[in-house]
Amino acid sequence: MRLYGTEIASRLLLGTAQYPSPAVLAEAIRTSGTAVITVSLRREGPGGGGFRDLIAQAGCHLLPNTAGCHSAQEAITTARMARELFGTDWIKLEVIGHADTLQPDPFALVEAARVLCAEGFKVFPYTTEDLILGERLLEAGCEVLMPWGAPIGSGQGLRNPEGLRSMRAHFAGVPLVIDAGIGAPSQAAAAMEMGFDAVLLNTAVAKAADPVAMARAFGLAVQAGRLAHEAGLMPRRDMAAPSTPIFGMAELL
Amino acid sequence: MRLYGTEIASRLLLGTAQYPSPAVLAEAIRTSGTAVITVSLRREGPGGGGFRDLIAQAGCHLLPNTAGCHSAQEAITTARMARELFGTDWIKLEVIGHADTLQPDPFALVEAARVLCAEGFKVFPYTTEDLILGERLLEAGCEVLMPWGAPIGSGQGLRNPEGLRSMRAHFAGVPLVIDAGIGAPSQAAAAMEMGFDAVLLNTAVAKAADPVAMARAFGLAVQAGRLAHEAGLMPRRDMAAPSTPIFGMAELL
Amino acid sequence: MRLYGTEIASRLLLGTAQYPSPAVLAEAIRTSGTAVITVSLRREGPGGGGFRDLIAQAGCHLLPNTAGCHSAQEAITTARMARELFGTDWIKLEVIGHADTLQPDPFALVEAARVLCAEGFKVFPYTTEDLILGERLLEAGCEVLMPWGAPIGSGQGLRNPEGLRSMRAHFAGVPLVIDAGIGAPSQAAAAMEMGFDAVLLNTAVAKAADPVAMARAFGLAVQAGRLAHEAGLMPRRDMAAPSTPIFGMAELL
Amino acid sequence: MRLYGTEIASRLLLGTAQYPSPAVLAEAIRTSGTAVITVSLRREGPGGGGFRDLIAQAGCHLLPNTAGCHSAQEAITTARMARELFGTDWIKLEVIGHADTLQPDPFALVEAARVLCAEGFKVFPYTTEDLILGERLLEAGCEVLMPWGAPIGSGQGLRNPEGLRSMRAHFAGVPLVIDAGIGAPSQAAAAMEMGFDAVLLNTAVAKAADPVAMARAFGLAVQAGRLAHEAGLMPRRDMAAPSTPIFGMAELL
Repeated sequence: MRLYGTEIASRLLLGTAQYPSPAVLAEAIRTSGTAVITVSLRREGPGGGGFRDLIAQAGCHLLPNTAGCHSAQEAITTARMARELFGTDWIKLEVIGHADTLQPDPFALVEAARVLCAEGFKVFPYTTEDLILGERLLEAGCEVLMPWGAPIGSGQGLRNPEGLRSMRAHFAGVPLVIDAGIGAPSQAAAAMEMGFDAVLLNTAVAKAADPVAMARAFGLAVQAGRLAHEAGLMPRRDMAAPSTPIFGMAELL
Repeated sequence: MRLYGTEIASRLLLGTAQYPSPAVLAEAIRTSGTAVITVSLRREGPGGGGFRDLIAQAGCHLLPNTAGCHSAQEAITTARMARELFGTDWIKLEVIGHADTLQPDPFALVEAARVLCAEGFKVFPYTTEDLILGERLLEAGCEVLMPWGAPIGSGQGLRNPEGLRSMRAHFAGVPLVIDAGIGAPSQAAAAMEMGFDAVLLNTAVAKAADPVAMARAFGLAVQAGRLAHEAGLMPRRDMAAPSTPIFGMAELL
Repeated sequence: MRLYGTEIASRLLLGTAQYPSPAVLAEAIRTSGTAVITVSLRREGPGGGGFRDLIAQAGCHLLPNTAGCHSAQEAITTARMARELFGTDWIKLEVIGHADTLQPDPFALVEAARVLCAEGFKVFPYTTEDLILGERLLEAGCEVLMPWGAPIGSGQGLRNPEGLRSMRAHFAGVPLVIDAGIGAPSQAAAAMEMGFDAVLLNTAVAKAADPVAMARAFGLAVQAGRLAHEAGLMPRRDMAAPSTPIFGMAELL
Repeated sequence: MRLYGTEIASRLLLGTAQYPSPAVLAEAIRTSGTAVITVSLRREGPGGGGFRDLIAQAGCHLLPNTAGCHSAQEAITTARMARELFGTDWIKLEVIGHADTLQPDPFALVEAARVLCAEGFKVFPYTTEDLILGERLLEAGCEVLMPWGAPIGSGQGLRNPEGLRSMRAHFAGVPLVIDAGIGAPSQAAAAMEMGFDAVLLNTAVAKAADPVAMARAFGLAVQAGRLAHEAGLMPRRDMAAPSTPIFGMAELL
């Protein structure tokens, strides 16, 4: 998988927040097999040296994020600081529009993406499944889209599968990474089977009873889903009434 | 995982029907990592030597089945012949009750299980999620239950998840293997996350465009699901309205 | 709709248990428009005269039930007493197999149905969506089947829609009444749209904040669903990517 | 229900396109009990007098729409013409962003809403379940929001129920009308049970085998759903294993 021209060895991207300890995080990164980890600027500051050493030693691509930003300007400023601090022009662009659902703000997102792309950033926007919003982000210069599966931290999985399938079909040649909402490996595998290019998650691993084992589970599930997508899934069959179908509709519920 | 006192190294059980060629089957068995393969008596007969050599070389436990039997007597006779032919007292007991859905016949299933258990067979019954039927099968002497996820060959996955969760909770100490209906690795992982002990499948691998890659995908997915079950999944959260819930019901749809 | 040769004016059957007061029950019966109400033998006894007058004045067909019976013999005895007490040979046959889910016991159900049909009862069996069980009940003499939507009192709706569609298709000429599990009018309407002949419910009305209004809601919903079934529902359309479908499967989730 | 200060007698809003004949449309309007019908400017023109008489005689509030518009300017121009032609400042604002899914264009929608609200229109925007987009529309001056259930003409029902529940909870005091995607009366009832104020539909009635009967079915279903919402639905209960729950998650699938 190539993202902004860089070959990435794993289709699982991992967040680094909320782990019980730096040691658990380091081991989770290792067992997951991830090649890209997100880091939040807010983690840095006095005393943050341990964390920084840890991520440096992980041997992964860093994807700084603008987590917690609620306006375009705040996100832009945070992105610029992250570029200085982490020495990369990759940025996961989050502009949170609503405190309840942590959904992106479509308007501020496009505005910030335009500015940052123009400044040479490689922008990874956290977006919804809205097709028009996705088009605007591509026009702004993004080469990757990261639609949510469900609200951040909810573990609801893919709550609008039809909408996500539309998005996958519409942006056939664009790398699409499901970002947020994944709570179980089966959900990550389902996203990959649908043809998404990768999955980014954090809470489901960090808040598992055993984060290290869960990290490995997600690593396997993402591989399984990708393999299955490439291997060609069997068609789903309706077994209800092979002889005399009695419904005037394909599927009621 | 122990089934009838035998330690089984993999939680994926694999069927051997419908593969494009013996070579593809042999390779699928290998990449899946399975330790138990089902074999049908009807495959045997004049000229079947190649298949028999193949399964002998696979190094797996054999689980002969009574596929295609529509009465208790037919299944009992088939089981006896399978014991002779394959040299094992393991038997996957299928008594098909209905041609459309290939669902088990609960009455004939219990009848056949009683006779076969009394004759020393280790019976693996293909059953529904019916709790009472499960209890009768245990009373008959079965030590494993194999509930369907969905009709054989349908690829619908787990079509009654609430019913299956009831079954898992009710038979807490009994090995339960999801048998039939699984069409995608994500579905196999979901079954394992729910706490089922193993998954048995055939069509989803045999009829994949690339059966060998799909076999590997299922092997990984079953591992992922089991690991996740043991590692403790994060709780699912409702993000809709943290402040003022407006529904009189927990979940409408 | 004809049930055992009797024309029934409404496709909503209503239970009479758990209401806050007899007056509320009487009014709920009226506003629902039901023509058949179930009554439990256990409600009768010393002091039960008021309830009996109430149901006599409701002008509905009585359908006594064997609620709470856990064996064939207990259900048979209860049915005989109900025939004496209520002066009808209609009997809703419940044989509860499992305390957790209140699912029917398939074995005891068939046994009791055989005995009661032979004694001239018009048996309305509370059953599962199991096709073979349904066939056995018809062989026993039942002319109506009443599959559960979900466990009694759960309000989960139709928890195995594919299984219920199979049942509807398989028993094309048999009156099928969804009995148990319905929690909301939309679920009752969905059952009717799928082609079921009627819906029987109790808890969803009796335990509503306003049972009388809810009874009316269910009456309307059942009418709406039946009308829609007869009027021919529009086909469901997949809107994702009309030009270049990218999935090898009809529907993943 | 009050919309822009006008009391509306029915919670079902009906479209007038695609009917087999004017006579069928007139009868469908009557049996549905609707009080608001949408009309498209494009229906008008030479020879359109019959249709205009028909809707005048229907005795309903007219809600002209901007169906088929793909830009803010096009929608604004169409709205102005509709005001002249139909003599009402009500306008259903549609700005289609994508031909495949017929989803609204969030950016053009807000732009057009601002202009039209400033010109004194009472704008009914066809929108998505996006909370931020909804807020922008209210800021622009809209007093009603009309989120899609699913793509126009798809009959998929409520394809993102969690997202719609978030929207209902977030905009507690704003009239919300589900517009588009409803294919069956049960789906309309479900929307009303969730607390939406009304439902707008067209294809599901116009394309039914019997549009007049289907119109009546939807009228009843919307009443049923609203009554149920007010009457207080019973809580949904999980019946699996009341004693010893074995899952670390509330709901896996």
